[in-house]
Amino acid sequence: MGQRTIELSYLNASDRQGFLFSLSGIFENAPWVAERVEAGRPFATIAALHEAMMDVVRAADAEDQLALLNGHPELAGKSARTGRVAPASRLEQGAVGLDRLAGEELLRFEQLNAAYRRRFAFPFIICTRRHTLDSILVNFQRRLDHAPELELGKALEEIGHITRLRLVERVDGPGKPKTAGRLSTHVLDTVAGKPAAGVEIVLTQRGRRRHQLRVALTNADGRTEPPLIDGAPVPIGAYEIAFRVGGYFAARGTTTSDPPFLDVIPIRFAVAEPEGHYHVPLLVSPWSYATYRGS
Amino acid sequence: MGQRTIELSYLNASDRQGFLFSLSGIFENAPWVAERVEAGRPFATIAALHEAMMDVVRAADAEDQLALLNGHPELAGKSARTGRVAPASRLEQGAVGLDRLAGEELLRFEQLNAAYRRRFAFPFIICTRRHTLDSILVNFQRRLDHAPELELGKALEEIGHITRLRLVERVDGPGKPKTAGRLSTHVLDTVAGKPAAGVEIVLTQRGRRRHQLRVALTNADGRTEPPLIDGAPVPIGAYEIAFRVGGYFAARGTTTSDPPFLDVIPIRFAVAEPEGHYHVPLLVSPWSYATYRGS
Amino acid sequence: MGQRTIELSYLNASDRQGFLFSLSGIFENAPWVAERVEAGRPFATIAALHEAMMDVVRAADAEDQLALLNGHPELAGKSARTGRVAPASRLEQGAVGLDRLAGEELLRFEQLNAAYRRRFAFPFIICTRRHTLDSILVNFQRRLDHAPELELGKALEEIGHITRLRLVERVDGPGKPKTAGRLSTHVLDTVAGKPAAGVEIVLTQRGRRRHQLRVALTNADGRTEPPLIDGAPVPIGAYEIAFRVGGYFAARGTTTSDPPFLDVIPIRFAVAEPEGHYHVPLLVSPWSYATYRGS
Amino acid sequence: MGQRTIELSYLNASDRQGFLFSLSGIFENAPWVAERVEAGRPFATIAALHEAMMDVVRAADAEDQLALLNGHPELAGKSARTGRVAPASRLEQGAVGLDRLAGEELLRFEQLNAAYRRRFAFPFIICTRRHTLDSILVNFQRRLDHAPELELGKALEEIGHITRLRLVERVDGPGKPKTAGRLSTHVLDTVAGKPAAGVEIVLTQRGRRRHQLRVALTNADGRTEPPLIDGAPVPIGAYEIAFRVGGYFAARGTTTSDPPFLDVIPIRFAVAEPEGHYHVPLLVSPWSYATYRGS
Repeated sequence: MGQRTIELSYLNASDRQGFLFSLSGIFENAPWVAERVEAGRPFATIAALHEAMMDVVRAADAEDQLALLNGHPELAGKSARTGRVAPASRLEQGAVGLDRLAGEELLRFEQLNAAYRRRFAFPFIICTRRHTLDSILVNFQRRLDHAPELELGKALEEIGHITRLRLVERVDGPGKPKTAGRLSTHVLDTVAGKPAAGVEIVLTQRGRRRHQLRVALTNADGRTEPPLIDGAPVPIGAYEIAFRVGGYFAARGTTTSDPPFLDVIPIRFAVAEPEGHYHVPLLVSPWSYATYRGS
Repeated sequence: MGQRTIELSYLNASDRQGFLFSLSGIFENAPWVAERVEAGRPFATIAALHEAMMDVVRAADAEDQLALLNGHPELAGKSARTGRVAPASRLEQGAVGLDRLAGEELLRFEQLNAAYRRRFAFPFIICTRRHTLDSILVNFQRRLDHAPELELGKALEEIGHITRLRLVERVDGPGKPKTAGRLSTHVLDTVAGKPAAGVEIVLTQRGRRRHQLRVALTNADGRTEPPLIDGAPVPIGAYEIAFRVGGYFAARGTTTSDPPFLDVIPIRFAVAEPEGHYHVPLLVSPWSYATYRGS
Repeated sequence: MGQRTIELSYLNASDRQGFLFSLSGIFENAPWVAERVEAGRPFATIAALHEAMMDVVRAADAEDQLALLNGHPELAGKSARTGRVAPASRLEQGAVGLDRLAGEELLRFEQLNAAYRRRFAFPFIICTRRHTLDSILVNFQRRLDHAPELELGKALEEIGHITRLRLVERVDGPGKPKTAGRLSTHVLDTVAGKPAAGVEIVLTQRGRRRHQLRVALTNADGRTEPPLIDGAPVPIGAYEIAFRVGGYFAARGTTTSDPPFLDVIPIRFAVAEPEGHYHVPLLVSPWSYATYRGS
Repeated sequence: MGQRTIELSYLNASDRQGFLFSLSGIFENAPWVAERVEAGRPFATIAALHEAMMDVVRAADAEDQLALLNGHPELAGKSARTGRVAPASRLEQGAVGLDRLAGEELLRFEQLNAAYRRRFAFPFIICTRRHTLDSILVNFQRRLDHAPELELGKALEEIGHITRLRLVERVDGPGKPKTAGRLSTHVLDTVAGKPAAGVEIVLTQRGRRRHQLRVALTNADGRTEPPLIDGAPVPIGAYEIAFRVGGYFAARGTTTSDPPFLDVIPIRFAVAEPEGHYHVPLLVSPWSYATYRGS
């Protein structure tokens, strides 16, 4: 994001100084993670580099781990809102709207943050780019009930998600770990036995932060180009794809009723695996439709 | 509606006076309609009686027809709002919310009423119980463009609808004309191969006057008892049936994702034939569903 | 079947002699069953009468039970083939073709009969009207592996099925126990949004004794009248319903390809509950179809 | 087929002799077709070369066209059966079984051949690799009714299909014309919301020459690898794909009935466009399934 990408081959070949500098900020306020993997070079893949860094984290002593966790800002905390956090964290929290909370929602986060820190002695950490505000709240509440040991593992796992995404954006080269999911659709006209071209599709994120993510027309193959979401995690949360089939059938002169039985068809579903492929097609006639999670 | 029903056999057997009195108000401000069919007694069915009355209307001269049409109040007109119309009309307009219009909507009706009366010299007549506010507006606009002769026929047709419904409520006996439609649903669990029992269903009318019409649970046969709408016209307009399948599958322990891919499934459709049977079933697994207009 | 039915009220009111005579043959060669329930009269329902008779059977001592079981002919045994069995048994075995076995199939039954009798000391008993030849063989093989106690219970259960069917045919009156299943279908044209009328349907029993059971045309409601199977058990086994949709769409002028993508659609399924309702509908366009076990 | 392929660049660059020799046999017994396009070199694509050759054919005088048509053997004629035809024709007729006809079928072809030649004065020509025996017979019968002029055009069109396929096999290079279709499938388990892996699939050609074309197992993505038919025309005709879903669900422990409601699901369909993509997926639970022509 704004920063130049670095080749893995460069990381493997550069001097220690260059290596450490290149990876600065991936693990927030914890330069020791990069320091301890440096001797393990060369790394065949970006995934192997990330795995090595996480091995360092998991093998670190309790003090180092706690310091790492405490190096992260609180969600929606004052430092996040006033901008006194690492740029990467700021961007990540901003994407999901955590820097713009107000009123009851802000209060709720402050209460959760306080309760969490009281119980675990480190801030609540979650990879915001894999979540919506709703799923962050659900997870926050659930994780408060965890036993401390379980929750420590969970927090480190989230640091794995956060740093994997940061690393993939910083470093280019072979063996990128899977960080992207996909949301795609396909409209099939079962009267014509053909893909339905020119159907207007609106993708909306639902929940507390309802907003339109995409408006698209299906192409000759009944798909959107590009897919509705691609190349990034699909945040855990609720979605709707609305298909304007009324206009489509009217334009084709397909006989129907007045008003048409089906006009705008909303398909509502939730995403649970941000790195998964969610193919949500529509098989449609003027009087019937079907959908399913495909692949 | 508050009034006692009369047996068709009584109508056939009573004296002229009784016959006319019993049918008063069916054709608003037009006692001559009943007068001219009285000699045609006995009527074998209620449908035959209504048909005979409509034959009288269609055979009447232009002056009588115009008087009949002008005997009806304007939609959402001042007389409707101030209550100075026949009780049947008041109830019919109230059902669709025409007595509570305000602001721009009221203005819109006043403009349409004025334009319509200017063009056709009688008020816009529509059987409100077969319509929603939205479909009344669509029809109002369309009918303004009709040629006068076509529109006269259309207005008399609507009087046919209005009086058929009134007659069916006033008179009991054989051969009731069809005035009722039906909206029903059925939920089939395609994992269990059985009707899905205990699924919460919410029926909503959509459009300008969005409101919940019914909340129901499916019974052991996967249906609602009684059907969602039965025994009355299903007003032309837009509807949604929402099915809470997430809770259903969770209660059965059917494996799914967290959050579940499908939770509340909205099916949106429009009704075009108020006397038709709209069967809108849901075939559902935790990962797929299908719907169609069945019978 | 050829015999006059008797009213339950007559059974309740007649003298002991008449009661016993009326129920003769229901439990083959075991008049003691009727004798021991006679004092329990009156029976409010036919189901209650049958249940009382089965209670007698289950409460009988081992000797009586064995005698009852041995009063039944072997399946496809010599006595069945030469006609020296009770008329009811003859008819029941004939329906499924057990009286016409030959060659390897006959040999197979003789081996199974011998092995079964050797193991359990009574003949293999199964309610043939609830089965096809295939499911009889599957059950025969499986039950040979049962522990003797389990198998005795299973044999008595089958006597329950056999006698329930016989009683329901002999006696008329309230509270008939459920002995009939149903197989029905429905064809919905998803292009027209209406039931498909005039579709030719062929129901075939599959397996060793493949034969056409029914040819029918769908009526205006897209159903067959009467249902494909009704008023009798639907024998456990494999079935096919073939729907000639090619001709249907051609007759309606629905655009399709040449040759049509879909012409005769075979739906193959198995019945496991003879008293169940198997609704096997077809939702079809010229390019797609769906089916499911409905209700 | 046994012959080495030639590069289009070689055809463009070689001397006239080499060019003509390389294309010999593409247009059976009609070297003049290649001769007349030779001067048009270079051809940018194989499609352009074929189009140029067909332009020559369509522009030729009646005598040359007739000679070209008469250079083709009769279908299932004596010369085809005794092997006295061009190797390409022999292979093409053999693929569909025309060299092995006997009895009534042979007689039928002999009658059709005689009637056709009497009417049009040239043999019936059809691109056998785009057809099954059934569709050849249907087309033979239909084309006998054509007006001579229409049928001449139809015969030349078939020569276009035949030579396009031959050219594509003989010549390598850019711009191959589309000669291949595709038949693919996909099995989606709607209980698991995932592709169904390990489902046995049997593809059969139906009609007079019923034979198994392919047995395959679905892979982790629910597809067969390679597709059921790929890289060649899908012959016009009737097909069945049978899916063994009973074993699949049993292996997964999915609850069902005994015997399972669905075991082997046959999907029967016809192909009308040999160069089209026929995607015929199955969405299946133990109690329901759906299929459609997808893309």
